[in-house]
Amino acid sequence: MFEIIDILGTIAFAISGVLVAMNKKMDPFGILIIAFVTAVGGGTLRDILIGQTPVSWMTNMIFTYVILGSTVLAVVFRSKINYLRTSLFLFDTIGIGLYTVVGVEKGLSAGLHPIICIALGTISACFGGVIRDILCNEIPVIFRKEIYATACILGGLVYFLIRKLPIEDNFVFIISGAIVIIVRLIAVKFKISLPSLYKK
Amino acid sequence: MFEIIDILGTIAFAISGVLVAMNKKMDPFGILIIAFVTAVGGGTLRDILIGQTPVSWMTNMIFTYVILGSTVLAVVFRSKINYLRTSLFLFDTIGIGLYTVVGVEKGLSAGLHPIICIALGTISACFGGVIRDILCNEIPVIFRKEIYATACILGGLVYFLIRKLPIEDNFVFIISGAIVIIVRLIAVKFKISLPSLYKK
Amino acid sequence: MFEIIDILGTIAFAISGVLVAMNKKMDPFGILIIAFVTAVGGGTLRDILIGQTPVSWMTNMIFTYVILGSTVLAVVFRSKINYLRTSLFLFDTIGIGLYTVVGVEKGLSAGLHPIICIALGTISACFGGVIRDILCNEIPVIFRKEIYATACILGGLVYFLIRKLPIEDNFVFIISGAIVIIVRLIAVKFKISLPSLYKK
Repeated sequence: MFEIIDILGTIAFAISGVLVAMNKKMDPFGILIIAFVTAVGGGTLRDILIGQTPVSWMTNMIFTYVILGSTVLAVVFRSKINYLRTSLFLFDTIGIGLYTVVGVEKGLSAGLHPIICIALGTISACFGGVIRDILCNEIPVIFRKEIYATACILGGLVYFLIRKLPIEDNFVFIISGAIVIIVRLIAVKFKISLPSLYKK
Repeated sequence: MFEIIDILGTIAFAISGVLVAMNKKMDPFGILIIAFVTAVGGGTLRDILIGQTPVSWMTNMIFTYVILGSTVLAVVFRSKINYLRTSLFLFDTIGIGLYTVVGVEKGLSAGLHPIICIALGTISACFGGVIRDILCNEIPVIFRKEIYATACILGGLVYFLIRKLPIEDNFVFIISGAIVIIVRLIAVKFKISLPSLYKK
Repeated sequence: MFEIIDILGTIAFAISGVLVAMNKKMDPFGILIIAFVTAVGGGTLRDILIGQTPVSWMTNMIFTYVILGSTVLAVVFRSKINYLRTSLFLFDTIGIGLYTVVGVEKGLSAGLHPIICIALGTISACFGGVIRDILCNEIPVIFRKEIYATACILGGLVYFLIRKLPIEDNFVFIISGAIVIIVRLIAVKFKISLPSLYKK
C-alpha cells in the first residue's frame, strides 16, 4: 500500500512537471529533466535530510521507469495537452497529498519527533514543485496566495491524530492524504488564504 | 557553552528571517518558513556535507521550539517592527558570528583540515541568509559589495591562531565570533569592500 | 588515471568559473566562491546523493589547492583574460566530459544501475555549471538551446557499450569523455539542437 502511494505520487508529479515544461515550450530533454526533478525532488531532499542514501530513486528503478513512462505518454498525447493543462492543478494536488503521507511515514521510520515528521512530509510534498517552478521561471507555488503547504501540515496533523485510533494503517494513509487534497481543493475553489498581518 | 552559541545564533537568524519576510508582506506561514529556513539553512548544508544525518534540527527539538517562539514573538510585537527593522543588520551579523564558530567546531569534530573547517564555518554562517534572500527575491547578502563572508573567514583564521594558546575554550569561541561581528560592523560602518580587480 | 581525470576536470571548471565571475566584474572573493562552487558543485551533489560523506573535496585537500591555484593564476594573468574568455566554452566542455566519466565511475562503485550511473554522471557534469550560471545571473547553460546534458548522456551510454569490450579501463575513460566533448563541440559548431515538439 505504502509503495503504491509513493508510485502514484511520482506519476502525478511527473505529469505535472511535463505540463509545466510543455507550457514553457521546452525541448524533449528539458521536459524529461523537469518531470524527473518534480517527481523526485521532494523525496530526494527528504532522504538526504534523514541520511537515507543512496536516495530512494537511485536504488529502486521503479521510479525511473514510472517517470520515463509518464513523460513519454504525456509527450505522445500532447495533442490532448490542452485538456490536460486544466488538470495540472489536480495532478499537483494529488501529488502533494500522497507525498505528505510518504514523508511523514519515512520520518516515523527514522524515529523522529511528530513535529519533525510533519515538517518532513511537507518538505517531501512541496519541494519538487518549488524546484519545478524555479527552473521554469514561475513564481514558486508555495509562495502564491492560496493555501498550499498549510494543507500538507493539516494532513500531517490528522495523521498523528487518527493513527492511535483503532483504524487500519491503510485507512490512516488514505484519510490523511485525502485531507491534504480536500483542503487544497477547497482553498483554491473558494480562494481561501491565510489572514493578512498587515493593515490594508 | 557551545550549545548556547548554537541556540543564540538560531534566534538571531530566525528574527532576521521574520524581519525580511515581513518587509515582503508575507502571510504568517510564509514568515514561519523564511524564519525556519534562515535559521537552519546553513547548519543543514553543513550537516549534509559532513554526513551528520538526520541533520541536527531534526533530532534536537530545541531548535524548532526556539524558531517557533522567536517567530511568534516577532509577529506579536510587529507594531514595534519598524524599530526592529533597523536591527535586521545587527541580528544577521550576530548570527554569522555565532554560526561561523559552530561550523568550525563541527568540522574539527569530523576530523577535517583547518582550511575545510573555515570553509564549513563560512558556509554555515552564510548559507541561511543566502537562501532567505533568494526566497525573498533580494540580492543575496553574500554578493553585495560590503565584506560579509570575508569576515567569517577572518574569524575562522583567528580561531585556529588562538586555539593553541593557553586560553579557555569558551574564550576561543567568544573571541573568534566577536572578530566576525566586529569586522562586519566596521566594514559596513566605513563602507569597506575588497579592492577591485578592474580598472575604472 | 581516474584521480587525474577528476583533477583535470576540477581545473577546467574552476577556470570556467573564474571567467564567468570576471565577466560579471566580481571582487576577488566572489571570483573564488564562483570558481569553487563551479568546480565542486557537481561532485558535491553526486557525493551527497550516493551518501559518500564528508564529500570528496572536504577529505582530499588536493581539490582545494588546485582550485585556489587555478583561481590565483587566472586572476594574475587577467590581462590575457580576453584571450581566455573565448576559451570559456572550451574549459566548460572539457569539464563536463571529464566529470561525466568520474560520475559514472562513482555510481558503479556504489553498485547502482547503469541508467542511474549515467544520470549521476550527467548530474556531476552539469550541476556545477548550473549553479555558476544561477549565481552569476546567467541563463543556466543546461537550459540554453544547444545540446549539453544530452552530450553527457551519450558519453555515459558509450561508456557502458564499450566497457565490456577487451579495452583497457583507461581507454574506456578517455573514449567516453572524448565523446561528450566531441558531441558538444559539434552541436555548438553546427548549432544542432533537439527537435522541437511544437509547431512553428
